[in-house]
Amino acid sequence: MNFLNEVALHYPDAIQLAAGRPTEEFFDLADVHRYLRLFCRYLADELGYSGERVRRTVLQYGRTKGIIHELVAENLRLDEGTEVDPESVVVTAGCQEAMFLVLRALRADERDVLLAVSPTYVGLTGAARLVDLPVRPVATGARGIDLDDLVAVVRRERAAGRRPRACYVMPDFANPSGLSMDLPTRRALLAVAEAEDLLLIEDNPYGLFHGDADRLPTLKALDTSRRVVYLGSFAKSVLPGARVGYAVADQRVRDACGGVGLLADQLSKIKSMLTVNTSPIAQAVVGGRLLASGCRLAGANARERELYARNLRRVLDGLAERFPSAADGVTWTAPTGGFFVVVTVPFPVDDDLLARSARDYGVLWTPMGHFYDDVTAVRALRLSFSTVSPDRIDTGLDRVAALINDRLGRPAVAVINRDRLADGAAGEP
Amino acid sequence: MNFLNEVALHYPDAIQLAAGRPTEEFFDLADVHRYLRLFCRYLADELGYSGERVRRTVLQYGRTKGIIHELVAENLRLDEGTEVDPESVVVTAGCQEAMFLVLRALRADERDVLLAVSPTYVGLTGAARLVDLPVRPVATGARGIDLDDLVAVVRRERAAGRRPRACYVMPDFANPSGLSMDLPTRRALLAVAEAEDLLLIEDNPYGLFHGDADRLPTLKALDTSRRVVYLGSFAKSVLPGARVGYAVADQRVRDACGGVGLLADQLSKIKSMLTVNTSPIAQAVVGGRLLASGCRLAGANARERELYARNLRRVLDGLAERFPSAADGVTWTAPTGGFFVVVTVPFPVDDDLLARSARDYGVLWTPMGHFYDDVTAVRALRLSFSTVSPDRIDTGLDRVAALINDRLGRPAVAVINRDRLADGAAGEP
Repeated sequence: MNFLNEVALHYPDAIQLAAGRPTEEFFDLADVHRYLRLFCRYLADELGYSGERVRRTVLQYGRTKGIIHELVAENLRLDEGTEVDPESVVVTAGCQEAMFLVLRALRADERDVLLAVSPTYVGLTGAARLVDLPVRPVATGARGIDLDDLVAVVRRERAAGRRPRACYVMPDFANPSGLSMDLPTRRALLAVAEAEDLLLIEDNPYGLFHGDADRLPTLKALDTSRRVVYLGSFAKSVLPGARVGYAVADQRVRDACGGVGLLADQLSKIKSMLTVNTSPIAQAVVGGRLLASGCRLAGANARERELYARNLRRVLDGLAERFPSAADGVTWTAPTGGFFVVVTVPFPVDDDLLARSARDYGVLWTPMGHFYDDVTAVRALRLSFSTVSPDRIDTGLDRVAALINDRLGRPAVAVINRDRLADGAAGEP
Repeated sequence: MNFLNEVALHYPDAIQLAAGRPTEEFFDLADVHRYLRLFCRYLADELGYSGERVRRTVLQYGRTKGIIHELVAENLRLDEGTEVDPESVVVTAGCQEAMFLVLRALRADERDVLLAVSPTYVGLTGAARLVDLPVRPVATGARGIDLDDLVAVVRRERAAGRRPRACYVMPDFANPSGLSMDLPTRRALLAVAEAEDLLLIEDNPYGLFHGDADRLPTLKALDTSRRVVYLGSFAKSVLPGARVGYAVADQRVRDACGGVGLLADQLSKIKSMLTVNTSPIAQAVVGGRLLASGCRLAGANARERELYARNLRRVLDGLAERFPSAADGVTWTAPTGGFFVVVTVPFPVDDDLLARSARDYGVLWTPMGHFYDDVTAVRALRLSFSTVSPDRIDTGLDRVAALINDRLGRPAVAVINRDRLADGAAGEP
């Protein structure tokens, strides 16, 4: 994504519909101090630690699997209806490290491959590249995963002598597609995993932001046979700046010495060679947030959920206004939550077009090609709406519509704010 | 090191001469709050950031290479006499991540090998294992590296069709040997690296703790031709709980697209797939500490340096008292600083002996075999003195001496506190 960052740096005044970051509207530095104090008080009052032990816990080297595993397990119980042994939780330097640890643990030799629903989150593809684990795409279909294709890919790989070690999925408001799996699809996916003896890696950064729809149980909550390694992130539900995520890896696996132990303990060994342990200061901040909310982050993120839901409605309504006719050849996904909408257009979308969009139209988005093996052929772009105000969504969509219509060589339909476009990239409030 | 941790957990009352952690004597939770505030004030007052931008800098996702690179560069200028471009600094989730990033960047295929002075820090060996980079030992000699052996290993590897990508060294108070390179050795090592076209990876966690001796310039400070990738840690000089370290990688290298750029930017790309960025909250804590000290950590660590120097004298004097005769067959290194002394004994030292030492003698140390390829044959143990009081050093040495003398089947010499040994592992103050 380096090119995308460069474009964003080069056109700082362009409207940001590219970045998948959480809203900054509720950021408060005082929270960091408050959470730290809360966590230290919890260590002293609830766990009975001496002052010396509190200081050591937060300031010294510490447990490789982390110090907030009990709170994470409690959060999973309350928010996800998932009972996990805290010993199966590995707290990581962001969810990205959790991804790396799991892939590194699964990769034994060059026969191993990873399956992933395509389009695929770039962080997953990057981590897989770091451990030399090839990624085989599985079609996403209309329901977040095409199970027939999944089975076909597993069997084809096995027939070729390769070992599909797991399939990576984001069942809730996937990045980048925005799509979710319905409940029957989740159950069917677990059944396929069981039948084909396949591990599932469930990544769930957006589950709490389910808009106006009901939440569905995670795969991990439905998992009765430890088929699912669950990846959690606090970047969106607490603070990105803490860089704290985790993996739940309760699978029983054979270790190097022939004994049987938790996959979490294998991840811990790898982590000890990678980052030693996750900053306990950063963990204390997240721990304090968990304590402040009674370990219920779903409730604690009600404001954020409403903000993202409002923005999502604005984007979907705005696209319908600007492209009223299906004959336009412009279509888009209609997620019920999350951070992303994907717009399909009748022409190729690449980095050059993005550069032109930034320069001539003052709006940034992400070419969908970045989420596929073959970048060039993709005719779609991803719009993120998590860090923009409703006004800027309107202006951003005006600009996206102007770009698309210019590209198609036709006048814009329902350009609501032509005058706003005129002062373009010159300067934004 | 999992076995060592287990032994320590199992015998919590044993005297800790195994852990290479910094002293907790000056730990203060209020410092964390103070440093955070100082860093935020610096962003606002010195860099002129708006409140919104300060919040975004500390709480949002951020620059992959970090946000305290300017302060790190200033610290290197003031404390090490090293001028580095802040753009060549990559701030990492502890120095361990820096190690991983460098090794991952250097490892292209199975022909690549890494050289490392033996005995070698286990974190280096672990990171090398994660990236499938074989480690070839180079003899340490009396001066921290045997240069003849270095040249011989480089040439032997090349003759066998392999590519020695770098040699890993810890020129100041190495972990585990405690040995340092003198100035002529440093210059000669740089000359060898130049002559043999070899990169050096300099790891420097203990340089500030130089006891009563003068500090010597780092390899990086003497490096005029960008032969040295420098690894820095704030675990000992600021706080382990921040988990913040860094690499200085100012080498010009060819990237995947054929362009030429900084090695630091290649490390940054790898980091974006590993941990995305280092927690800016944790960086802010370290940044605040740097600001509080005018970026002079050498001065700011005067108390710590004196404590470690005092403990080092206590260990060296205590060993001399307990093993007065060279005929004992018990010898030890005499470092001038750092955290470690290595004791050589006339019998094999392994994990079983450590377990017995913990159970029967109430003292923990580290079998030196852990720092070699071949664990079993090593007849030495590492004593750490960074987290113990002088009294406990005395008791710990009594216990180590009792173990050694019992093992040699002879009465203890100069056992000063036989009565202290009697209440053994039952409970410690």
